[in-house]
Amino acid sequence: MAKIIVIHGSPRKYGAVTKLASIAAKGVEDAGGTSEIIYLYDYRIKECLGCVSDDTKYCRFPCIIIDDDFNTIGEKILESDGFILVTPVYWYSMCGAMKNFIDRLTSMENMIFITGRSLLEGKVAGLIATGNDSGTILTLAHMMIVLNSMGVHIPGWAIAYHHSMDDVTEDDQVILDSYNVGYNVAKLADIVKNSGTWYKPDVDPKSLASLASSEAEKYKAQLEERKKLFEKLLGSGKN
Amino acid sequence: MAKIIVIHGSPRKYGAVTKLASIAAKGVEDAGGTSEIIYLYDYRIKECLGCVSDDTKYCRFPCIIIDDDFNTIGEKILESDGFILVTPVYWYSMCGAMKNFIDRLTSMENMIFITGRSLLEGKVAGLIATGNDSGTILTLAHMMIVLNSMGVHIPGWAIAYHHSMDDVTEDDQVILDSYNVGYNVAKLADIVKNSGTWYKPDVDPKSLASLASSEAEKYKAQLEERKKLFEKLLGSGKN
Amino acid sequence: MAKIIVIHGSPRKYGAVTKLASIAAKGVEDAGGTSEIIYLYDYRIKECLGCVSDDTKYCRFPCIIIDDDFNTIGEKILESDGFILVTPVYWYSMCGAMKNFIDRLTSMENMIFITGRSLLEGKVAGLIATGNDSGTILTLAHMMIVLNSMGVHIPGWAIAYHHSMDDVTEDDQVILDSYNVGYNVAKLADIVKNSGTWYKPDVDPKSLASLASSEAEKYKAQLEERKKLFEKLLGSGKN
Amino acid sequence: MAKIIVIHGSPRKYGAVTKLASIAAKGVEDAGGTSEIIYLYDYRIKECLGCVSDDTKYCRFPCIIIDDDFNTIGEKILESDGFILVTPVYWYSMCGAMKNFIDRLTSMENMIFITGRSLLEGKVAGLIATGNDSGTILTLAHMMIVLNSMGVHIPGWAIAYHHSMDDVTEDDQVILDSYNVGYNVAKLADIVKNSGTWYKPDVDPKSLASLASSEAEKYKAQLEERKKLFEKLLGSGKN
Repeated sequence: MAKIIVIHGSPRKYGAVTKLASIAAKGVEDAGGTSEIIYLYDYRIKECLGCVSDDTKYCRFPCIIIDDDFNTIGEKILESDGFILVTPVYWYSMCGAMKNFIDRLTSMENMIFITGRSLLEGKVAGLIATGNDSGTILTLAHMMIVLNSMGVHIPGWAIAYHHSMDDVTEDDQVILDSYNVGYNVAKLADIVKNSGTWYKPDVDPKSLASLASSEAEKYKAQLEERKKLFEKLLGSGKN
Repeated sequence: MAKIIVIHGSPRKYGAVTKLASIAAKGVEDAGGTSEIIYLYDYRIKECLGCVSDDTKYCRFPCIIIDDDFNTIGEKILESDGFILVTPVYWYSMCGAMKNFIDRLTSMENMIFITGRSLLEGKVAGLIATGNDSGTILTLAHMMIVLNSMGVHIPGWAIAYHHSMDDVTEDDQVILDSYNVGYNVAKLADIVKNSGTWYKPDVDPKSLASLASSEAEKYKAQLEERKKLFEKLLGSGKN
Repeated sequence: MAKIIVIHGSPRKYGAVTKLASIAAKGVEDAGGTSEIIYLYDYRIKECLGCVSDDTKYCRFPCIIIDDDFNTIGEKILESDGFILVTPVYWYSMCGAMKNFIDRLTSMENMIFITGRSLLEGKVAGLIATGNDSGTILTLAHMMIVLNSMGVHIPGWAIAYHHSMDDVTEDDQVILDSYNVGYNVAKLADIVKNSGTWYKPDVDPKSLASLASSEAEKYKAQLEERKKLFEKLLGSGKN
Repeated sequence: MAKIIVIHGSPRKYGAVTKLASIAAKGVEDAGGTSEIIYLYDYRIKECLGCVSDDTKYCRFPCIIIDDDFNTIGEKILESDGFILVTPVYWYSMCGAMKNFIDRLTSMENMIFITGRSLLEGKVAGLIATGNDSGTILTLAHMMIVLNSMGVHIPGWAIAYHHSMDDVTEDDQVILDSYNVGYNVAKLADIVKNSGTWYKPDVDPKSLASLASSEAEKYKAQLEERKKLFEKLLGSGKN
């Protein structure tokens, strides 16, 4: 049974983010999982201090910023099998509060350099964005690649979005999609449970580089042919 | 045993794309999978005609453009468990040849409206981008969300990139990452095999909308409080 | 003589953001302008409350959040001819502090709905992003379109970026580019001064719609031809 | 009087791209400019061969690919003061045909390395994207930063977009915005005419690096303070 955290990123609890978060939570439950909604604005999440750029050893979990609530939410994510971020779209992107939260997740990812493993590796995530105007895909594409770079799996159909002034409850597509974000995150989280670690660092780059070079070497004649062609074209044109 | 197709998107077979593609293929094999590299430039892939905008029924697989090679590659992807796209970065994005290929994949995704299912649903993908300059993350974020929107799973650490004039074989990070793209795509493809369909369309949007509205309704007092506060602030400022 | 504000978005004043900001400032001065560097982390910029979604009239400049420093910086921008944002790259995007600042600029842009004009219309901006890893172009592309959507002009060569662990002072390209960001922002700001308002809202959409429809109408035969072709292809394929 | 080329990127001449292109052209004319619409699908634009990666000298204008129509369009752009790209949105991005066109523009930009100047430097551009679904902002942000990186100015309010199945003629916002894209591109093109070259390469990076280092040096005490704080926090936490 997958445990999924739903992170609600809007200052407005009576609006679209709450609606879509609750639909995603229903999807989680229908897939046999349990869900908990965290309202980000109920917590104080300070800005990241960028300590990792001073010395990578400073950036670890729990985050060394201990006078706010990030670590509390971090612990919940740590104990979960996956999570769903639901954000309002502010200027074609997640809101600043959600961005600060993402920035602070670095403390969990950077454990790669402390213990060898990102604390988010192997978790499963989904993403929902809602706004009055366009920009949802830029928002979601950015969030998706960030999470993936922290070691998080993204199931098919892991996104839902709404980009209009109409109420989200009148938009069947975002309703079905949000439900499926919940359903698929919980389903994949169940499936990948107990599948061990993912990133394999113990590979010899030298031997892979050598294999790569031999493969490219096979085509070196193509370079000569191309150069011959380009020289001929250069001469023939008015260039 | 996962069958993974590696799509090579560069006109230059003696370069970085070949090198990283071969490293990803090695990762696939080390995870117990089999790989096949397809050189996109060996095939003729015409531009999408946008027939779906005339009538959604025209867009289906095999694509109705039958005088080029797209359907041949499409068949290979259909028979695979997953695929890895390796693209050179041209202007902060995949090259035009790869974009045409992606545009034509619509014929596989749009089967949603013909048979009810995207032909790519449940497959697993990874992505590699290499260029002399920046723009790799914009390239990869775009490609990732496109594939995910076609129903494709993205395993953690599914990306690798190189953004410099140096040879990729001197960049240990992109070597390890490309290997892991292959390894993780094959590993997840094995794990999710036989897990059935993913998108559940048979959900009642009305009942979900009603659940969503009740949830938001619980917080309606917050709206009144906020408005009261904003009115007060409006009066107090120099606005 | 153009007055250009340089917004410094890093918590680390001894690092790359300071270096590139000072180079951009030099470019401004060499173009005959004056520059002032604002260190964002010296100010308290709270998260946007999203009041515009409650009622568009709440969102105006000065922002109704009056217990922080946003309006002070807003005033400086208001009095300027242009500005340059210099941000560290946190997860392929501007840092949360800069995002909060951008979110709060909504109060200046949303004056469209209060007085008919964005307070940023006609200003000129440039953008610099620096980080240890990739993601600079995604960062800059996002920032650029946001500012443009607020009515800001972007001169050619308005971006500079650095994406490596090396010191920025060893990267001649980012040095030259940062200088040119400053130079070109100041130069264009001088050129566009006194060129009046830009967005023309007093246009009749109905007559433009009619012109547009007539233009498209000229090609209606193409639709018929295409449909005929697609029907034939549908029949001929194995679809 | 500004000469503006409107590049129409859709295979469907009876649709939204034609409508918005004609509205933008009207805006150009109302600003006192002249416009010419180029239908990209009437021309054959082959894929870029990536010759610049073999040797930068191969990539120049006219492009060495001389058996297609790119150079014809390139000449038109060369003679213009600005241009407007109007693209359908295919998978959250410009269509493959437009991407091939952008890739081929490298031949004009890369003149930097042949003659010292991008042939697009100082031109002015605007962008319009239209599709049935979301993805317009990702499309436009990408296109905007590409053009800017070629030396092109982007006037405020240079974008227009439509993201729905409804006809564009029913969307007053995209109509007004498309008109303003045309108007503002022509207006800025007039203003910046005869303003000379923009990118200044003749700057000494060493002296700028030295200035930058001195500026950062002023804040070196902050680094020590931060490290002291982080060490203390590291000890105090459960890390």
